[in-house]
Amino acid sequence: MTTSLIPTPSQAPPEGGASVSRLAVRRVAIDTWRENVAYLHRDCAVYRAEGFQALSKIEVRANGRRILATVNVVDDLGIVACDELGLSEDAFALLGVEAGYKVAVAQAEPPESMGALFRKIAGERLRREDLRAIVRDIAEHRYSKIELTAFVVACNRDELDREEVFFLSDAMVATGQRLDWHEGLVVDKHCIGGIPGNRTSMLVVPIVAAHGMLCPKTSSRAITSPAGTADTMEVLANVELPLQDLQRIVRDHRGCLAWGGTAQLSPADDVLISVERPLSIDSPGQMVASILSKKVAAGSTHLLLDIPVGATAKVRTIPDAQRLRKLFEFVAKRMGLTIDVVITDGRQPIGNGIGPVLEARDVMWVLANDPRAPHDLRQKSLRLAGRILEFDPDVRGGDGYAIARDILESGRAMAKMRAIIDAQGHKPFDPDHPALAPLSFEVLAKRDGIVSGIDNQQVARLARLAGAPKVQGAGVDLLFKLGDTVKEGQPLYRVYAAYSSDLEFARQASERNAGYYLGEAGAETRQFVEF
Amino acid sequence: MTTSLIPTPSQAPPEGGASVSRLAVRRVAIDTWRENVAYLHRDCAVYRAEGFQALSKIEVRANGRRILATVNVVDDLGIVACDELGLSEDAFALLGVEAGYKVAVAQAEPPESMGALFRKIAGERLRREDLRAIVRDIAEHRYSKIELTAFVVACNRDELDREEVFFLSDAMVATGQRLDWHEGLVVDKHCIGGIPGNRTSMLVVPIVAAHGMLCPKTSSRAITSPAGTADTMEVLANVELPLQDLQRIVRDHRGCLAWGGTAQLSPADDVLISVERPLSIDSPGQMVASILSKKVAAGSTHLLLDIPVGATAKVRTIPDAQRLRKLFEFVAKRMGLTIDVVITDGRQPIGNGIGPVLEARDVMWVLANDPRAPHDLRQKSLRLAGRILEFDPDVRGGDGYAIARDILESGRAMAKMRAIIDAQGHKPFDPDHPALAPLSFEVLAKRDGIVSGIDNQQVARLARLAGAPKVQGAGVDLLFKLGDTVKEGQPLYRVYAAYSSDLEFARQASERNAGYYLGEAGAETRQFVEF
Repeated sequence: MTTSLIPTPSQAPPEGGASVSRLAVRRVAIDTWRENVAYLHRDCAVYRAEGFQALSKIEVRANGRRILATVNVVDDLGIVACDELGLSEDAFALLGVEAGYKVAVAQAEPPESMGALFRKIAGERLRREDLRAIVRDIAEHRYSKIELTAFVVACNRDELDREEVFFLSDAMVATGQRLDWHEGLVVDKHCIGGIPGNRTSMLVVPIVAAHGMLCPKTSSRAITSPAGTADTMEVLANVELPLQDLQRIVRDHRGCLAWGGTAQLSPADDVLISVERPLSIDSPGQMVASILSKKVAAGSTHLLLDIPVGATAKVRTIPDAQRLRKLFEFVAKRMGLTIDVVITDGRQPIGNGIGPVLEARDVMWVLANDPRAPHDLRQKSLRLAGRILEFDPDVRGGDGYAIARDILESGRAMAKMRAIIDAQGHKPFDPDHPALAPLSFEVLAKRDGIVSGIDNQQVARLARLAGAPKVQGAGVDLLFKLGDTVKEGQPLYRVYAAYSSDLEFARQASERNAGYYLGEAGAETRQFVEF
Repeated sequence: MTTSLIPTPSQAPPEGGASVSRLAVRRVAIDTWRENVAYLHRDCAVYRAEGFQALSKIEVRANGRRILATVNVVDDLGIVACDELGLSEDAFALLGVEAGYKVAVAQAEPPESMGALFRKIAGERLRREDLRAIVRDIAEHRYSKIELTAFVVACNRDELDREEVFFLSDAMVATGQRLDWHEGLVVDKHCIGGIPGNRTSMLVVPIVAAHGMLCPKTSSRAITSPAGTADTMEVLANVELPLQDLQRIVRDHRGCLAWGGTAQLSPADDVLISVERPLSIDSPGQMVASILSKKVAAGSTHLLLDIPVGATAKVRTIPDAQRLRKLFEFVAKRMGLTIDVVITDGRQPIGNGIGPVLEARDVMWVLANDPRAPHDLRQKSLRLAGRILEFDPDVRGGDGYAIARDILESGRAMAKMRAIIDAQGHKPFDPDHPALAPLSFEVLAKRDGIVSGIDNQQVARLARLAGAPKVQGAGVDLLFKLGDTVKEGQPLYRVYAAYSSDLEFARQASERNAGYYLGEAGAETRQFVEF
């Protein structure tokens, strides 16, 4: 197995790919989204001589680099001439040569790991080197969408055993950048997602950083949810930081709340996500590999992992959550990462606001010890922060929560948050006058009753239809939570939108399913867990 | 479940897709190979207003038609202007309007069957209506490559039970054209493939048609092999026939040997094959559905199915072949198709020539009762034809072979073949002077011995490297078969190519692996079967 990007001629087997032709490269300004596409004119001599077809994969070499690309055949000389090779934006950038550069073009050898992929499709267990080869080919964009999807689906459900999940995670770390903070205790927290609101990271990070722990938190943007931590933090501060700035901020303030996309951590994961999302695939093995590879690559040594359980959460039952916890624990141990997995109440959104501005408002109210702060967001954040504080060998078991509460109530958490915001580059935000989207409507209770259920997915859907996260001030503001008593005609929640069409979509969807269930006292679904 | 292509506005749920904008359609001369691609300029008002992204799916409506397409974002006004919607060749053709036509563009609803697809990915058993919806969406090109691949991989191996294979086959028939020959006995034969040479159809069809049976044989071109029946027949006659011509020829001559691509039989199958091939997926369920749906759609009532077994064949062991046979039998019965499955010797190529011209030569030699005719091709074809003749209620069980031999030896099979060739449009071909490619080399025995093994896959690979089937006269001509005695230095086979680079590729590959094994007498792998 070779690890070099460029095999020497003797390494490249000749048949099927030995013939090399040269064409002038041209940037074709088409964004094909992570798939390299090469545009060849139908009358191009190379196209005909090599027996390429539409969807053939070709190898393009220039200046010591090589990329694979899928052929699209073109009949328009305006797009690509007969002696040219057109490359889509991604492919052109990846090859990194100037337009007009003479590149070598040949029928591509299939990616090295194709055999391993076919064995996984056939149901075999893969070895460590198989998963290394697959992940490297994926990170180097050598897989077509067909091959990527095949890998994801073949590894779905329980098709990966726990050793394979470790091999996959380990390979994902190995293919990207890996940060080293040169400290023995680097903490992080992560939630597997699925609960609207739930912006605990923005409270946990300032609390534990104020305690002095190193917490370089990088987050994703929303993919299918109405707001990710990065989207919400972006209401308050700049989150797209060059790696050097991020490292300086963490050194100065012991923490950050940044978008993780710039750091090239576990790059294969980003490629895999591009096919997992449209298929709604979120298998245990892939979830564990995705999360743990990113954390280890980010240099974390200790991780607190939050698995919310509820009827409309990602994990629906306690036994499922426990199985998932054991898989996290097994793989983390093999990777040398200390992990503490907590199973939390996922029956309803955490906090009141859903959408970047509304969630930022809730977070700032908690930090300000404002009486309007959502109690559940405050409590959960303090508990999570307390568990992380107990990673500190000087903190006695059971003391974490009280320390966290003291840091919050004393204003030290707010001071730390303000310092981090200033360091990242602050934006104007006033939690008493958040810049909400101008249009709104309220959804009213149709009768008296007790709130007995809130559908996480439907509430998230309404917030997205209203425009979140793209419209920062759009979203849903919940006015009642589980167990609250409501009277007929009272507003259950308020929906904010910037455009009348968005407002209308959200209104129609809320009329079909408001996402709220009212019942008699005691009818609410029982609380699964308390940690 | 609606079967109309165009839902009325009330059927289309509003959220996520209700907003409709209009753009002038433009043909972008890019061949994206069965995937509809829409090119939108980054500064297009619709692109920005609708929140489309690269890879978003949009629905394009014009003139009562609608298609789905994947968005590629363009930054070049020469490809697509801000008020235009570019469509790839396939998409443009499918929509069927003139350039400049104002089309309606909206965020696409996901295909109706997405829920069923997700359930299959999650490992659930699908119902009849689920598979109907999936197959309809596939045939209408509503699936992206990601979704197609996910379906194929999720149905791989034993993930489809036999009921589901029937539902799939039945749905594949229902979505395409279905021929009706208005006769009670319409016969066909099919081989699951994997054996080079093996052009039995070109002998079986004239024999059984000469007997008076109706045998409207349509075949595929080679996809991964050095020649399909359509490629080989094309050496002798025109094979791309409009459906009306094909029907007339079958009426006049009781048979044909045509390419099946024009008839729109089981169109979903062609779409599925486009992702199965690059993944080398050939699972039992998909194979059965693919073959039986095509046969039933072609109007066959009786099918003889050939499963060759051998170490380098598709099916490697007799138990595997028997399992596959039972699946074919179960599904065929549910579809009302009479099937006779034969398990045959797949240890080596059938006939001597591999490649269109060489295979046509062997076929014509057999028909001419020429002493140079390959014995194995003749014998297998007679046996298969005999089994089909026994579908005739007037033929006594066991008499088929003798009748077939009589039809062949009397010259009636050749006369029928000439009639079919003339009807389809004949091409000049002389079996004594076949138009072989001009370059050649021989592979010599390195020592004395008995031919103890021939690697089907390697021999097929050599023929393809030499240029077959694209170069009709390219290929491999085998000079010895299993059990033959060879002397050191004697040529085992001859390779023909039209281009020196092709010849060189084939030569290098043959030097690494000649595909022949020599041993002591009796060392050849035992013959699995004799039917």
